[in-house]
Amino acid sequence: MTASHDRPSRSLLSVDELGTDGILRVLELADHMAEVNRRSNPKVPALRGKTVCSVFFEDSTRTRLSFETAAKRLSADTMTFSVSQSSLNKGESLRDTIDTISAMGVDAFVIRHASSGTPWQVDQWTTASVVNAGDGWHSHPTQGLLDAYTVRTSLGRTDRLDGLRIAIVGDIKHSRVARSTSAAFRLLGADVTLVAPRTLLPPVVEEPVTEDLDGVIEDLDVLYLLRMQNERMNEALVPSLREYTSRFGLTPERAARLAPQTLVMHPGPINRGVEIAVDPAELPGAVITQQVTNGIAVRMAVLFDLLGSGEPSTEGISR
Amino acid sequence: MTASHDRPSRSLLSVDELGTDGILRVLELADHMAEVNRRSNPKVPALRGKTVCSVFFEDSTRTRLSFETAAKRLSADTMTFSVSQSSLNKGESLRDTIDTISAMGVDAFVIRHASSGTPWQVDQWTTASVVNAGDGWHSHPTQGLLDAYTVRTSLGRTDRLDGLRIAIVGDIKHSRVARSTSAAFRLLGADVTLVAPRTLLPPVVEEPVTEDLDGVIEDLDVLYLLRMQNERMNEALVPSLREYTSRFGLTPERAARLAPQTLVMHPGPINRGVEIAVDPAELPGAVITQQVTNGIAVRMAVLFDLLGSGEPSTEGISR
Amino acid sequence: MTASHDRPSRSLLSVDELGTDGILRVLELADHMAEVNRRSNPKVPALRGKTVCSVFFEDSTRTRLSFETAAKRLSADTMTFSVSQSSLNKGESLRDTIDTISAMGVDAFVIRHASSGTPWQVDQWTTASVVNAGDGWHSHPTQGLLDAYTVRTSLGRTDRLDGLRIAIVGDIKHSRVARSTSAAFRLLGADVTLVAPRTLLPPVVEEPVTEDLDGVIEDLDVLYLLRMQNERMNEALVPSLREYTSRFGLTPERAARLAPQTLVMHPGPINRGVEIAVDPAELPGAVITQQVTNGIAVRMAVLFDLLGSGEPSTEGISR
Repeated sequence: MTASHDRPSRSLLSVDELGTDGILRVLELADHMAEVNRRSNPKVPALRGKTVCSVFFEDSTRTRLSFETAAKRLSADTMTFSVSQSSLNKGESLRDTIDTISAMGVDAFVIRHASSGTPWQVDQWTTASVVNAGDGWHSHPTQGLLDAYTVRTSLGRTDRLDGLRIAIVGDIKHSRVARSTSAAFRLLGADVTLVAPRTLLPPVVEEPVTEDLDGVIEDLDVLYLLRMQNERMNEALVPSLREYTSRFGLTPERAARLAPQTLVMHPGPINRGVEIAVDPAELPGAVITQQVTNGIAVRMAVLFDLLGSGEPSTEGISR
Repeated sequence: MTASHDRPSRSLLSVDELGTDGILRVLELADHMAEVNRRSNPKVPALRGKTVCSVFFEDSTRTRLSFETAAKRLSADTMTFSVSQSSLNKGESLRDTIDTISAMGVDAFVIRHASSGTPWQVDQWTTASVVNAGDGWHSHPTQGLLDAYTVRTSLGRTDRLDGLRIAIVGDIKHSRVARSTSAAFRLLGADVTLVAPRTLLPPVVEEPVTEDLDGVIEDLDVLYLLRMQNERMNEALVPSLREYTSRFGLTPERAARLAPQTLVMHPGPINRGVEIAVDPAELPGAVITQQVTNGIAVRMAVLFDLLGSGEPSTEGISR
Repeated sequence: MTASHDRPSRSLLSVDELGTDGILRVLELADHMAEVNRRSNPKVPALRGKTVCSVFFEDSTRTRLSFETAAKRLSADTMTFSVSQSSLNKGESLRDTIDTISAMGVDAFVIRHASSGTPWQVDQWTTASVVNAGDGWHSHPTQGLLDAYTVRTSLGRTDRLDGLRIAIVGDIKHSRVARSTSAAFRLLGADVTLVAPRTLLPPVVEEPVTEDLDGVIEDLDVLYLLRMQNERMNEALVPSLREYTSRFGLTPERAARLAPQTLVMHPGPINRGVEIAVDPAELPGAVITQQVTNGIAVRMAVLFDLLGSGEPSTEGISR
């Protein structure tokens, strides 16, 4: 069986724009890529001659390395542009930077920026593909996709996630992960509940909301914990880390109440003792490491979806 | 037709040392490389197994990425040595650095340094090829070559540039671009005029000079605008940016007086509103983006000229 | 003849753990790799599809470039994680960093860290191979191996180093090079003497010790000079650089007393005028450049030993 590959769009900016069909297309491609990754030589020529340029205006070694590993496994060339190295120091505008790199013949930009919306701007300026690797608090679509892929494969599903009960816990307001991951789960039919103090919720949300983690914890297929940033304490949005953990952290008491098959997920890096006050290695349902591993397959799928030509089977990619 | 490839030199240090025949040889090779770059897989095995090391003592992401892209399209391996990462911090001398990297088996150094003449020193120390990617105010030969290539292809020429009227406008004194680009144009037979305030001219120049841009602007095949550095204001070499623009900038009034086929060029990054006070996208003759694109083909040509063995046609490079 | 390749271990943490048989196995593999490096295309497909990640918590461009060059010549993909780029800034622990990169499917970590023992910790956390590229004052096994390889090839030996008289001179106490290089020489049967002021010796050493360089200098097969760190002066462990040179440096007087065939070695970068107060280019036995060149072959051998499958001859590697 080969992936359906009709009407891929040129860029991946948000999970919502990808839509349910697009998500399913990427997840199916990711199955093929995961098979490649299990080979002793996990490298295929699918994107030979393509160039992927990482343009990171915020430090994120894990995301950058994940995209670069994905690109290299597809035999693409990679370039890195990070702001500290850049001639933006000389007053060069983002527009000039993108124009210049585009003119060199880059096929895709992978862009991270502190300002929401920047990838949409970049997408207007270039004919290359643009992958949003995180813009402000707004969106991080490959995170949403890898989370959906992890739930799907961990639970042995092959299609949508209809009927799954998922809680996303923590700082919803400042989290692009929360936004993209909840959108991916929702578009695949899951029932998502947001669990957060009122101070860490945005003004408008699409999902039901509760402050009572204990009231929902026993009935979950997936418990998704967000990273708690220390700066929220400084902003007085949370009284203290200890207080946060007692109300919203995965403590030993709460871990004991989880159903054994409940998946425990986190986008990383974990603040040990804060969001998770137990050793994740002792949670039977923890799939945090698998999220990282699946990130490679999902990003390979995204890059192939945007830049590849034709069927995966013609590129040495097949199950 | 294949490129003549007799007597390539080991290093590219300046346009003058390359000479007219050398320039023509590189431009002809660049035609082959531009054809490669138009392919859907713009990658050829010509330099497989060669290693190109970028040694940058000044930030220049655009130049570094251009060389690295060129090297990768020829299947060379690339390494980057930038001074902030380096053990020069431990008091290691430039000589030791070059000796060490040479001993690892590097085939070419691409070097940028704030001191004029450094690439010639490096060339004495190593048997590897050396490409000057900019030394102080002195020389930047691949810029000169890509500018000559851009004029040649934009005007449909296939040989020299005899008889073309070219004005280079701005800070001639502090510009290695001005030096290399004017040399390339001159060696190919063009008539070059330098347009600059007296404070921004070096003591001796080979070309005719004027301060009157308006007096020459209607009769140009090429208007080449240099980047204006803010630090020249601080040094009181120019009264103000506004004053500079009114006398030497491409204002809407001057743009209206340009012949429609006049090429408008700039080495980038542009100070919008200073050298160019109109939208370059609305100038019919603007080839600023093509300069960047052609930079890849020209740098591929330079690397192949220095490191390649034999005819381009035997390496999958042909028109 | 092909290399014996039985029972390679998963990681290379110290010369002592590698043992005499392991050292000999790596040196024999390095002979094959040196042959590859003499080819006009010094690249073999031996590790295609493998990924080697450099994780450097201390700056060391020479060691990092050497490993990356070695990995690329074997067609492995390389990634670099340096601490300044990293999300360790966000309070991510070393453990989380290693777990994350491991989960992406890296095959080997090349790690440098200021704390002794870190590579052993990392080796507990990952199933990937770990190569110690220097931990504190403790160990730097590939330096020991490349030094042994350099002695062996420079003296035309093909087996052990039995009976060779070697002096290692300088700051033994703070030198991981001294520790690894003396261990490699000792395990191969050489007679090693340590020459240092008492203040620069560790409390316990296995080799004979002297403060009298002049008493041993005429009877050496190898004179190995260590780098003198300026900070030792500040710590008052040495009265002055001038005093150090007069007692332990290779002055013109001492150089005149060396036997012509005595090898002169240094791990680099040299403090000219301190450890070596003559021009190394004028010492007939100086093999300092060869150490750097051999570093590539030895690191290729180490990576192939850890990650390769089967005989070198099946990978295009043969003498």
